[in-house]
Amino acid sequence: MFQVAELGRKITKREYKERSESLRQELLYLQRRLQESGDCQVIVDFAGVDGAGKGASIQKLASWMDPRFLIAYAWGPASDEERERPEFWRFWMQLPPRGRIGLFARGRYSRPFLQRAYGNISEAEYDAELDRILGFENDLAEDGALIIKFWMHLSRDAQERRLTALQNDPLTKWQVKDIDWEHWRIYDQFVAAAERTITRTSTGKAPWILVEGEDENFRSLEVGSALAHHLREHLAAKGIALDSEGESPPAPQPEEDYLPPRPDGLVTVLSRMDTSKRLGKSDYKKKMKKYQADLHLLQRKALKKGVSSVIVFEGMDAAGKGGAIRRIVAPLDPRIYRIVPIAAPTDEERAQHYLWRFWRHMSRAGRITIYDRSWYGRVLVERIEGFASRDEWKRAYAEINDFEQRLVDHGIVLTKFWIQITPDEQFERFAARAVSPLKRWKLTEEDWRNRQKWYDYERAAHDMIARTDTFHAPWVLVEGNDKPFARAKVINTLCTRLANRLDNG
Amino acid sequence: MFQVAELGRKITKREYKERSESLRQELLYLQRRLQESGDCQVIVDFAGVDGAGKGASIQKLASWMDPRFLIAYAWGPASDEERERPEFWRFWMQLPPRGRIGLFARGRYSRPFLQRAYGNISEAEYDAELDRILGFENDLAEDGALIIKFWMHLSRDAQERRLTALQNDPLTKWQVKDIDWEHWRIYDQFVAAAERTITRTSTGKAPWILVEGEDENFRSLEVGSALAHHLREHLAAKGIALDSEGESPPAPQPEEDYLPPRPDGLVTVLSRMDTSKRLGKSDYKKKMKKYQADLHLLQRKALKKGVSSVIVFEGMDAAGKGGAIRRIVAPLDPRIYRIVPIAAPTDEERAQHYLWRFWRHMSRAGRITIYDRSWYGRVLVERIEGFASRDEWKRAYAEINDFEQRLVDHGIVLTKFWIQITPDEQFERFAARAVSPLKRWKLTEEDWRNRQKWYDYERAAHDMIARTDTFHAPWVLVEGNDKPFARAKVINTLCTRLANRLDNG
Repeated sequence: MFQVAELGRKITKREYKERSESLRQELLYLQRRLQESGDCQVIVDFAGVDGAGKGASIQKLASWMDPRFLIAYAWGPASDEERERPEFWRFWMQLPPRGRIGLFARGRYSRPFLQRAYGNISEAEYDAELDRILGFENDLAEDGALIIKFWMHLSRDAQERRLTALQNDPLTKWQVKDIDWEHWRIYDQFVAAAERTITRTSTGKAPWILVEGEDENFRSLEVGSALAHHLREHLAAKGIALDSEGESPPAPQPEEDYLPPRPDGLVTVLSRMDTSKRLGKSDYKKKMKKYQADLHLLQRKALKKGVSSVIVFEGMDAAGKGGAIRRIVAPLDPRIYRIVPIAAPTDEERAQHYLWRFWRHMSRAGRITIYDRSWYGRVLVERIEGFASRDEWKRAYAEINDFEQRLVDHGIVLTKFWIQITPDEQFERFAARAVSPLKRWKLTEEDWRNRQKWYDYERAAHDMIARTDTFHAPWVLVEGNDKPFARAKVINTLCTRLANRLDNG
Repeated sequence: MFQVAELGRKITKREYKERSESLRQELLYLQRRLQESGDCQVIVDFAGVDGAGKGASIQKLASWMDPRFLIAYAWGPASDEERERPEFWRFWMQLPPRGRIGLFARGRYSRPFLQRAYGNISEAEYDAELDRILGFENDLAEDGALIIKFWMHLSRDAQERRLTALQNDPLTKWQVKDIDWEHWRIYDQFVAAAERTITRTSTGKAPWILVEGEDENFRSLEVGSALAHHLREHLAAKGIALDSEGESPPAPQPEEDYLPPRPDGLVTVLSRMDTSKRLGKSDYKKKMKKYQADLHLLQRKALKKGVSSVIVFEGMDAAGKGGAIRRIVAPLDPRIYRIVPIAAPTDEERAQHYLWRFWRHMSRAGRITIYDRSWYGRVLVERIEGFASRDEWKRAYAEINDFEQRLVDHGIVLTKFWIQITPDEQFERFAARAVSPLKRWKLTEEDWRNRQKWYDYERAAHDMIARTDTFHAPWVLVEGNDKPFARAKVINTLCTRLANRLDNG
């Protein structure tokens, strides 16, 4: 069966560029429609031959789609808490909620598959394990979930070539472990177990999709197209309206600007920033390449040493928080970071102290948690909109300092970014969003109206920085009018902080 | 400072009986008002000298109040997942939601306190630790939480007497560990550290209450009265209406019964049950005493062996599920069981497959999880009220069987009780509730109206039993018209099943 994935198919750089751009637009569109509908869970599994691009495919999809609304996860050895519960507990607990997409590696197939490949369980025992997995998938599919399973394949020779190539490159050497060569040595058993897995568990509701893994561009397009295809079909079958061009309704544009004149004598730490700072295109490209490579290596060290990072983004609407986050995560393994977009609390969160919902997302050692907006909402939006009482937001400064102190005491590298743009820059970005077919869905009437309160927010941000810019958790103010400059500064800052911590810790 | 808790105060059995009854009514009333208001979290901590009744006090409070809406927790050594996060993460994650009470032992004071008692940290370091704890308590208190901290005290001689007595009784011998004697040997350091703890961290918002621990009756009343006192004050300060007699508004009683005539020819497994079974008072007392003692011992073995239990209760309204649960948990350490009352799902639960919210409560090894109503709601209330589509509840039987199979495969002892009462018995119980000042708040118009659908429920329960009474997870049908009979059967069944599992596993 695997001959179909050993055809040596490749794709030219040019074709890849063309096709990947439109594929990305389609995926973003479908992801957004899925999220708006909140209708079903999407579970995407990656399994297959070592070196065939399981992790790389997850990383690629995360870079194409909106990473804030993706969950990427790879199960390692069970923790003691997991071992004390039925095996599937950990799979249940990592399911994405409806409307979100989960990308998974080393999931429910992994343990029984390896046991079978090594001959530690009989075919009958393996079949029984597969039946249990099918039962799980069936339950979720019946409930409306979309399940897609990618089997990333390489021929025996191709795997050898691939592992050798990875090993010879100092940048990727670490990816090849002894166990990968062990698996290669039992390639035939490995593939026999794979064939049984696929033939027995490829169902209409949860199909396996064989992907030829040798050429990176080819496999990325294969994986992306298959996901887009199944996602579109699934949403359509659910009765969710989809237009073929990924169009969204025209965005509102007000007749006059809501921004009031700047209050006399208002001077803040933000108004003193030099937002004219720029970074030229070629400089940006060069710097980004270096910074991202640095971040990648530093994060690998941090994972090994168990040094966690918490990164906070705050700033006005359209300041470029999302774009900066995308550049941070691009060089990272999606399985070791999580982006937590902060919106209205759920009812379980409302039943607790407001800091509880930030505590709950604390990651295990060595991981990165990125908050797209954060606990600072208490002294920004909640203060201005009156969601928190005067007492509540006033005491929040001390609570937050205390909270952050605890993270730092635990050895977490905490970095807080305020990205600053001018009101004019925001106006231009809103106007550009309004006419962009890909972005206009982001823009609402309310965004325009919020400009009315620009200076209230500026004052609140000023107070926030004055009270929470501490030695252990300083604010990094980022001049944001020029996106390349801002992004480079953000990543460079993270590299510096992480490097300092790793050197000193 | 501890002389006030070394006065040798005792209380007669008779006085205890009188005072505890009215105290219990007051606690139940306050617990209910707290829950109805959903206004604040209540955190009750127990610390103190070993043998002074920390665990016993939690158990007593759990037996006095409604255990379904209590959370009891004792932190053991940190799990690997806990160690990889800031120390306070695990304290945050166990906080009761607003409207509930949490009873805690070996909490945030435990580690630094022992370090100080053993002289492993300096006084200054200990003070810094205490400041951190105070910060945590202060955050919660500012948010409206009620925090009460009990210091259970014994004099040095009393502790020696107590530990010796516990050790000499074969039933309680296990409670005394080497470490307890070690602590006794450093009694003076222990008490010095305690004094510093109490003087530095007893605040208006989170006071320490010193309790003389030698006489069980005395200390139970002390703890219960203090809790009631503070709870009442706190609720009153929040503006929550309280009446001094624990009165509730008159309960509704319909002019005519909604129960329809029994449909012709309806024969179910339930209608065949002999609901006339009775158990006399003295027999009940004798049997209960034995069964509860057995259950206590069996559960200790199960905890040691890591054998978990899942217990499910289903049955018509007023069938006696809550009463049976209270009898099960009475002899158990509240820190090793959790009661999960199933009501409407939260929004986070609604965003997942319906089984997810049952998976999430799976306990760690050796613990007991009791579901007061369960996943069977899918084929009972959701079927009858149309909350689940025909497709959904029809396929639920297989999903449930599969789910239960997984629990059993993991070695969990799963026991499912259907408590059966007759319509007449339910009528009488409703009528009795309507006039009981302590119980009439439980009764709503809807309870009466639901009698209309009695036979729909009976049919659904019949189908449920037919399809989910499996070899690995059999239903236990309990004749419920006589409460003593039902309760004895429930506990006896649990003992038998647990004993079988422990013998064979």
